[in-house]
Amino acid sequence: MSVVVQNIPRADKAVVDAFSSYGVATVHEAQGRVGLLASYMRPIYRPAHISGSAVTCEVAPGDNWMIHVAVEQCQPGDILVVTPTSACEDGYFGDLLAASLIAHGVRGLIMNAGVRDAAVLTEMKFPVWSKAIYAQGTVKETIANVNTPIVCAGGLVHPGDVVVADDDGVVIVPREKAADVLAKSKAREEKEEKTRARLSAGELGLDIYGFRERLAAKGLKYVDYPYKG
Amino acid sequence: MSVVVQNIPRADKAVVDAFSSYGVATVHEAQGRVGLLASYMRPIYRPAHISGSAVTCEVAPGDNWMIHVAVEQCQPGDILVVTPTSACEDGYFGDLLAASLIAHGVRGLIMNAGVRDAAVLTEMKFPVWSKAIYAQGTVKETIANVNTPIVCAGGLVHPGDVVVADDDGVVIVPREKAADVLAKSKAREEKEEKTRARLSAGELGLDIYGFRERLAAKGLKYVDYPYKG
Amino acid sequence: MSVVVQNIPRADKAVVDAFSSYGVATVHEAQGRVGLLASYMRPIYRPAHISGSAVTCEVAPGDNWMIHVAVEQCQPGDILVVTPTSACEDGYFGDLLAASLIAHGVRGLIMNAGVRDAAVLTEMKFPVWSKAIYAQGTVKETIANVNTPIVCAGGLVHPGDVVVADDDGVVIVPREKAADVLAKSKAREEKEEKTRARLSAGELGLDIYGFRERLAAKGLKYVDYPYKG
Amino acid sequence: MSVVVQNIPRADKAVVDAFSSYGVATVHEAQGRVGLLASYMRPIYRPAHISGSAVTCEVAPGDNWMIHVAVEQCQPGDILVVTPTSACEDGYFGDLLAASLIAHGVRGLIMNAGVRDAAVLTEMKFPVWSKAIYAQGTVKETIANVNTPIVCAGGLVHPGDVVVADDDGVVIVPREKAADVLAKSKAREEKEEKTRARLSAGELGLDIYGFRERLAAKGLKYVDYPYKG
Amino acid sequence: MSVVVQNIPRADKAVVDAFSSYGVATVHEAQGRVGLLASYMRPIYRPAHISGSAVTCEVAPGDNWMIHVAVEQCQPGDILVVTPTSACEDGYFGDLLAASLIAHGVRGLIMNAGVRDAAVLTEMKFPVWSKAIYAQGTVKETIANVNTPIVCAGGLVHPGDVVVADDDGVVIVPREKAADVLAKSKAREEKEEKTRARLSAGELGLDIYGFRERLAAKGLKYVDYPYKG
Amino acid sequence: MSVVVQNIPRADKAVVDAFSSYGVATVHEAQGRVGLLASYMRPIYRPAHISGSAVTCEVAPGDNWMIHVAVEQCQPGDILVVTPTSACEDGYFGDLLAASLIAHGVRGLIMNAGVRDAAVLTEMKFPVWSKAIYAQGTVKETIANVNTPIVCAGGLVHPGDVVVADDDGVVIVPREKAADVLAKSKAREEKEEKTRARLSAGELGLDIYGFRERLAAKGLKYVDYPYKG
Repeated sequence: MSVVVQNIPRADKAVVDAFSSYGVATVHEAQGRVGLLASYMRPIYRPAHISGSAVTCEVAPGDNWMIHVAVEQCQPGDILVVTPTSACEDGYFGDLLAASLIAHGVRGLIMNAGVRDAAVLTEMKFPVWSKAIYAQGTVKETIANVNTPIVCAGGLVHPGDVVVADDDGVVIVPREKAADVLAKSKAREEKEEKTRARLSAGELGLDIYGFRERLAAKGLKYVDYPYKG
Repeated sequence: MSVVVQNIPRADKAVVDAFSSYGVATVHEAQGRVGLLASYMRPIYRPAHISGSAVTCEVAPGDNWMIHVAVEQCQPGDILVVTPTSACEDGYFGDLLAASLIAHGVRGLIMNAGVRDAAVLTEMKFPVWSKAIYAQGTVKETIANVNTPIVCAGGLVHPGDVVVADDDGVVIVPREKAADVLAKSKAREEKEEKTRARLSAGELGLDIYGFRERLAAKGLKYVDYPYKG
Repeated sequence: MSVVVQNIPRADKAVVDAFSSYGVATVHEAQGRVGLLASYMRPIYRPAHISGSAVTCEVAPGDNWMIHVAVEQCQPGDILVVTPTSACEDGYFGDLLAASLIAHGVRGLIMNAGVRDAAVLTEMKFPVWSKAIYAQGTVKETIANVNTPIVCAGGLVHPGDVVVADDDGVVIVPREKAADVLAKSKAREEKEEKTRARLSAGELGLDIYGFRERLAAKGLKYVDYPYKG
Repeated sequence: MSVVVQNIPRADKAVVDAFSSYGVATVHEAQGRVGLLASYMRPIYRPAHISGSAVTCEVAPGDNWMIHVAVEQCQPGDILVVTPTSACEDGYFGDLLAASLIAHGVRGLIMNAGVRDAAVLTEMKFPVWSKAIYAQGTVKETIANVNTPIVCAGGLVHPGDVVVADDDGVVIVPREKAADVLAKSKAREEKEEKTRARLSAGELGLDIYGFRERLAAKGLKYVDYPYKG
Repeated sequence: MSVVVQNIPRADKAVVDAFSSYGVATVHEAQGRVGLLASYMRPIYRPAHISGSAVTCEVAPGDNWMIHVAVEQCQPGDILVVTPTSACEDGYFGDLLAASLIAHGVRGLIMNAGVRDAAVLTEMKFPVWSKAIYAQGTVKETIANVNTPIVCAGGLVHPGDVVVADDDGVVIVPREKAADVLAKSKAREEKEEKTRARLSAGELGLDIYGFRERLAAKGLKYVDYPYKG
Repeated sequence: MSVVVQNIPRADKAVVDAFSSYGVATVHEAQGRVGLLASYMRPIYRPAHISGSAVTCEVAPGDNWMIHVAVEQCQPGDILVVTPTSACEDGYFGDLLAASLIAHGVRGLIMNAGVRDAAVLTEMKFPVWSKAIYAQGTVKETIANVNTPIVCAGGLVHPGDVVVADDDGVVIVPREKAADVLAKSKAREEKEEKTRARLSAGELGLDIYGFRERLAAKGLKYVDYPYKG
């Protein structure tokens, strides 16, 4: 049986929105290096940087019917996250669906498959992260689930989780941890700002992070050229 | 035996040119979801959007000799479509060949292999769709066919077929069907314009397309969160 | 045992710098069609074009510790070339390490793995050629070699070799051959300039290069459409 | 923080064992076409067919330390399911670890990465499904979780879930649904047995399943050769 | 519109059958190095070697409905050739469909997608060449064409063409050329038999084929070790 | 200029031969986890296990001419190592060349491209490690080097290096280090034999290797199910 789960919980709006100030790499580190989607999930134009609440959607291979169902479940501030039930690069999504999502306040699309109308989506400034850009059309025959937990591009996504996406890819933050991860992202960014200043001034990471002793203990040797290995 | 077929037929120029107003996704749908080349055929710069008549060219792996032969068969308004006789990513084509094609009025290149001088081609505004960007040079030793039917990136291309290419990829329209597919592309675009307006106004595809009843008949259920799947 | 080789030789600075006037395809041809890295090594932004002296660095999979060690070995005009000891797409390098390299006059990064903070690196105008853009973080646990010969993306790189990188990819010129290859690059460019002018004027490569006789000898036939193959 | 979760629940032993009578395709269908791992997970030798209870294990890229930790959590009848925290093909597992798992009654390994000693594992008749066979060695530096839920090759696996693996790949059955899915697998097999007999006797699926009317309603036409499409 | 083309022509049975004495490499050479399907088309068990007449079948992604339609068009001595209308690795075909094909005298399957029940197909000795082995199930919702020309794995296949498949892959011989290609295959094999004997006796290809002079003319030099390149 | 280097040095025959007693994984570990070729280099049949002295050979893409040249440089006990100058999967090598190599005492082939006649090579028991099995034929037009250092499948190979290949892949041992690596391989095997016995008796690696304390120091915690992560 396929279901559409309604009235899903979302994280606090201020928290969700604040994530758009932090890059995917920062958020990923802040939550302990978990939650990244696969490296093949790429933005269709750059730069792009959004955060929002996940509405999840399964689709059959070559069949985009459930995306239409999912649109109705979206609220302003959401990001639609779509995955096929088996691997597919067809163009499930184009400018008409983008117009529909924009009308409902959706901030972007995470599509573990292909999209089309890439030039128009770029002009519309509707950000999309996808596996492929491909014009191949899809049918409307097979139902699947909306707003159930899904595995998308190697990541587990629950409806209402926070999605952060930028030029580096996509990271998922579980809803319950959102506030904590946001605070840690802020702390990390502040700490990095100081390190960045020191590195820009020419100091070495070797010294800032104190690596020299541990490297020597591991057996690293410094030799002069020519070296016979 | 390898041959160069001369004096190929082409579709009506007005028809060929008019296709550049329609995106690859639209044309692909208009002709019944056929004729797309593989999703790995990507433009070397974006945006890019052209239509033209196909001149087809086979090349041996790592050997671009026949491209020089094909140039002579090109006329203004043509698009050169090249495929190796076995898979190869070498850089068969660069700025010199582009200069030559431009001099003969060719609108772009579809290359099921690699190209090089990508920065110069971009500056020249000579659009190319290819499998790879790669500097690897090629030899001139082995002959093959020009203007015979070829399979290029999964698609069958006859000389004189209409090629349409944009940011979504490449679609081939058989010469004999060009006028019909053009008319259908125009009709589709007009219909989509109306749908786009309704979707932008917030109407749901579920209602515009009347999907609700059929979804229910398939067994789709709406449930409230929390749902135990 | 892992080593850091210090005081490596470099090619003459004027030679190294002069390579930035020649594209990767030209240099690759000038040195006899050798020295290219694999086609998957792509610039994170375009256009980009640099030349410099290689500092080589091995890293363990998922471990960027040695990049910090390598920074200390870099001088103004260098390009850092990094390869993992087994294939990996993790994000070994981001904006902090870029700030550090910039502070030491490094011109760019060749990374046979992933990088992150792509948007910031683009804003900083720090050019990177990599296998992937991916936010995945790395650890600092395992040592490896700096400034020993490495195989990176299918190419052999010695410390002090000249690296040339542009939108077409990356080519390595052995230090001892740098002056010779530079001269040949210049000669090739001059010769191509003349050919380019003739091609742009509409002359055919078939005639400029005198291919017709050899093609006929190989058996190439010209036939009229319709041709039954 | 990394944890090792002890004393995980397992499905009823009789149920777990009974699954080895049913192929992966059958079980996958019986539970509604969900739970398959990616198609790149292949057996290192064929035929192979096992069922067991999942012990889950995360590992860092290029680091097999946690497999040693996981062995202690295994019981007779278990199958060890290992995934790296980012994509890796290194040889995490060889004949020594196989000897250890066999000593603890483990039935096989599901490894979303590489394994080595393939010839010895084949002789030992220890079945493994993996992404690669590769001799590359790994370090022991970084900790991760054992017996927490993991995403492995696109599938969500909880400790104690039932794993079924054969020449077609790997399917995961949630522990709570194991008895139900087993019953449905049995029912499906019995039904298919009857269909198989009819098909082997020459009856057509078109007739057995009653497809003809629905195909005609969709618009399928029968025409005689030659047909001009 | 989708069609099923009936009463297709086939090559002479004696010719079709005789091809099973010749390997794919031999037939490919005999017909001028054309007609091979892509290298990813692999037999599910080895050795396997068949020839037969092609019945062609398109399927939608994730939808195997049309295979049931195609079975009815098969005759003893046929080989079913199936391709999805966009790339897909789902398990379109298993032991039930194999039982049906066997009942109708079909000699094997060429599937540009996935198959399942690989262990049973192997026991049944029903040879299959496919892109993947994968248990993923398919639906029955979308119609497509049977016995129209298709592009399958990079090769053009007309219904009634001769298919030859062995451990090296799959080659297609156009029906009209079958007798000629068969004769050339036989001639090639006889010629190779003599060469094989000379090579096995220790003669060098350099001498048998008379390569030395042409190699020298190209500039090949023999030098003694150590050589400074 | 292309050269054939004659009279290359080889390692001591007893040493070269003794390597065939040790698996690729063992040799790779014994020489410090270096020298492996890429994981895509797979044996065309299993099991297979050889050692020998490398004769290296470059070939142009789609051109196997230089293999004929290389045969003459081979001696009994050699292994031919071939790489194309740019990536290619064509079938460079078949049963005729195998017959020739066998006649000259060559033990096997390492081919960073495709091979054909796989069924016959298997019957002949001529072991091959390759990137692909593919019938695609090649030409004889372009010269390249024999017995110069090459990068093959990510590994650096000098003529006369020791090649060890088994079901896990291929490892290269520099000639000068062969005796030392052989000794270390033997030592490693003996040590592993003892560990294997203890593991087979049920002892845990955690205890044998003394990992518990270091794992705890890294922060690994043991918790009871249910655990809220």
